[in-house]
Amino acid sequence: MDKINVGVVGALGAVGNEMIKTLEKSGLNIDELRPLDTFDNAGKVISFKGKQVGVKIAELNAFKGLDLALFSAGATASRMLAPIAIEEGAVVVDNSSAWRMVDHVPLVVPEVNPEALKEHKGLIANPNCSTIQMLVALKPLHSAYGIKRIVVSTYQAVSGSGIAAINELSSQTKNILENKKVDVSVYPHQIAFNALPQIDVFLENGYTKEEMKMINETHKILDPEIKVCPTAVRVPVFRSHSESINVELISDFSIGEVIKLLEESEGITVVDDIDNLKYPLAIEAEGKNNVYVGRIRRDSTIQNGLNLWVVADNLRKGAALNAVQIAEKLVEMNLHKKKKVKELV
Amino acid sequence: MDKINVGVVGALGAVGNEMIKTLEKSGLNIDELRPLDTFDNAGKVISFKGKQVGVKIAELNAFKGLDLALFSAGATASRMLAPIAIEEGAVVVDNSSAWRMVDHVPLVVPEVNPEALKEHKGLIANPNCSTIQMLVALKPLHSAYGIKRIVVSTYQAVSGSGIAAINELSSQTKNILENKKVDVSVYPHQIAFNALPQIDVFLENGYTKEEMKMINETHKILDPEIKVCPTAVRVPVFRSHSESINVELISDFSIGEVIKLLEESEGITVVDDIDNLKYPLAIEAEGKNNVYVGRIRRDSTIQNGLNLWVVADNLRKGAALNAVQIAEKLVEMNLHKKKKVKELV
Repeated sequence: MDKINVGVVGALGAVGNEMIKTLEKSGLNIDELRPLDTFDNAGKVISFKGKQVGVKIAELNAFKGLDLALFSAGATASRMLAPIAIEEGAVVVDNSSAWRMVDHVPLVVPEVNPEALKEHKGLIANPNCSTIQMLVALKPLHSAYGIKRIVVSTYQAVSGSGIAAINELSSQTKNILENKKVDVSVYPHQIAFNALPQIDVFLENGYTKEEMKMINETHKILDPEIKVCPTAVRVPVFRSHSESINVELISDFSIGEVIKLLEESEGITVVDDIDNLKYPLAIEAEGKNNVYVGRIRRDSTIQNGLNLWVVADNLRKGAALNAVQIAEKLVEMNLHKKKKVKELV
Repeated sequence: MDKINVGVVGALGAVGNEMIKTLEKSGLNIDELRPLDTFDNAGKVISFKGKQVGVKIAELNAFKGLDLALFSAGATASRMLAPIAIEEGAVVVDNSSAWRMVDHVPLVVPEVNPEALKEHKGLIANPNCSTIQMLVALKPLHSAYGIKRIVVSTYQAVSGSGIAAINELSSQTKNILENKKVDVSVYPHQIAFNALPQIDVFLENGYTKEEMKMINETHKILDPEIKVCPTAVRVPVFRSHSESINVELISDFSIGEVIKLLEESEGITVVDDIDNLKYPLAIEAEGKNNVYVGRIRRDSTIQNGLNLWVVADNLRKGAALNAVQIAEKLVEMNLHKKKKVKELV
């Protein structure tokens, strides 16, 4: 396999850190790993395959010689720097929301729509964390039975908001246990020992941006005909998102068939042994690659109704791992050298 | 108003303690307040209207002279002791699940089905916490538009499992922050920084008992025709349950109408000002009597679809307050002296 040079923009963030750990174990033959971050973090050192690597500033000249650049530094950074990286010849895999809904930008979950990669024009978008795990779990069901409608309520971890949010949950929790005052900064309200029915900003239709991402990205990645009704909720969990998913399928199924289908699907682990009180748990998904599915049971209130409890590590499959898997697929399909096209940048 | 003698069984539990606080502020004209608990707790002292009252043992002779007995000491204690209390002439309001689904036992939420009290035969059951708040929020909508189907995912606080669970969440949380070993005792898995998709035991159909309570109690209290599909989840919150509710109504509505209807309904406070990031929150419902409703928005994936976020203090409206409100209604309707009927006991 070709040796390639890979940049990680936002290398010291929660997702960037996870990207570097995932790249270490990936099938990619990496010659240079180049961690990039803000001016404040330049000069810090990260470890990659036993070597110490200095963090460089993510600026105009930072992308020379890179084959791939994985971005996870927020939408503004992606909007500014991804075109430069592409101009320099790198293929960008972007974890922000900046380009996801742009028409000619493929939005990819490798288990779901790898073929979309062929259309890339220098940039591939990594979907939202809560969408990725939902679609990995639902793709096999859509292929087998067709999905008509999804009603989903999420239980999302704070690490989706970065390291500051992880620290905020820790410090608020500690202060509450010690009867001290709680400071609120990352979220609009206290997250410790609470449940916040708001993720990202509110839109005019009364839904949050996070909720609309789950709708729009499902349409783009899986099928524009699927109806999606989401409620996105932040809970005091450090890592791994859980989702309570109610699905209305088009054709009939048996629970046995569904379990078998999910067990045989790539990227899914079924944990559904209620006799022994086994079901997917956020704390057990942490650090794991797969999407965990359990509480698989018929919803008899509608025809072909099904309930699922779906859990995945939001920093891995929900972000870093999916981005690295996209990078691996690009190399495997020899699409990592595809020329940039002016229309994107 | 008649002076009455009121017993509280399980007086030192999380709900019992709240019952006593609620009775203090209630409209009832209480002559004697008699706290009852296990042998281990007898002799302890609670405070009621500025007086210290000794806790007595909940046993055969404990109920003499009581007009009302509020039970919150679990299903086994209710099964054993409620018949004795009734035999002694008290009317029992029982917070356990022991009698809820018994045919001739009224299951009452005062805002929803107060008329059912007239049929009581010495015992009235208090519904499950997660059912109560859902039905307070949905009753006005059912009356106005008719409800066809409910899909609900809950975010339930640990206080629903009693003081031991509150302590377990505290101690597990503290240990995790200090990198110490976590002990698991009340729940089958760690609750701190986690989400457990199991409340109460599993039944043969793959649903938990908590989930089946939400279905069966909705049918008994509100309407047996309403289809209910629940997923009950425990989250690391000390107090107040949150619920993500998706409703399919029978006739059409406008969001403005729904908000007005809910605002004018007894026991409901609408908190739905997304421009100012206001919505119901568990930590803000704590210690409050009302059921809080927000995130009121149309679900356009079905005809007449509606989403709500419903929060209430599980120890108050979900348990103690609802029981005391039943007691108040009984006195108001002069049903607290109704003779016991042999068929119950």
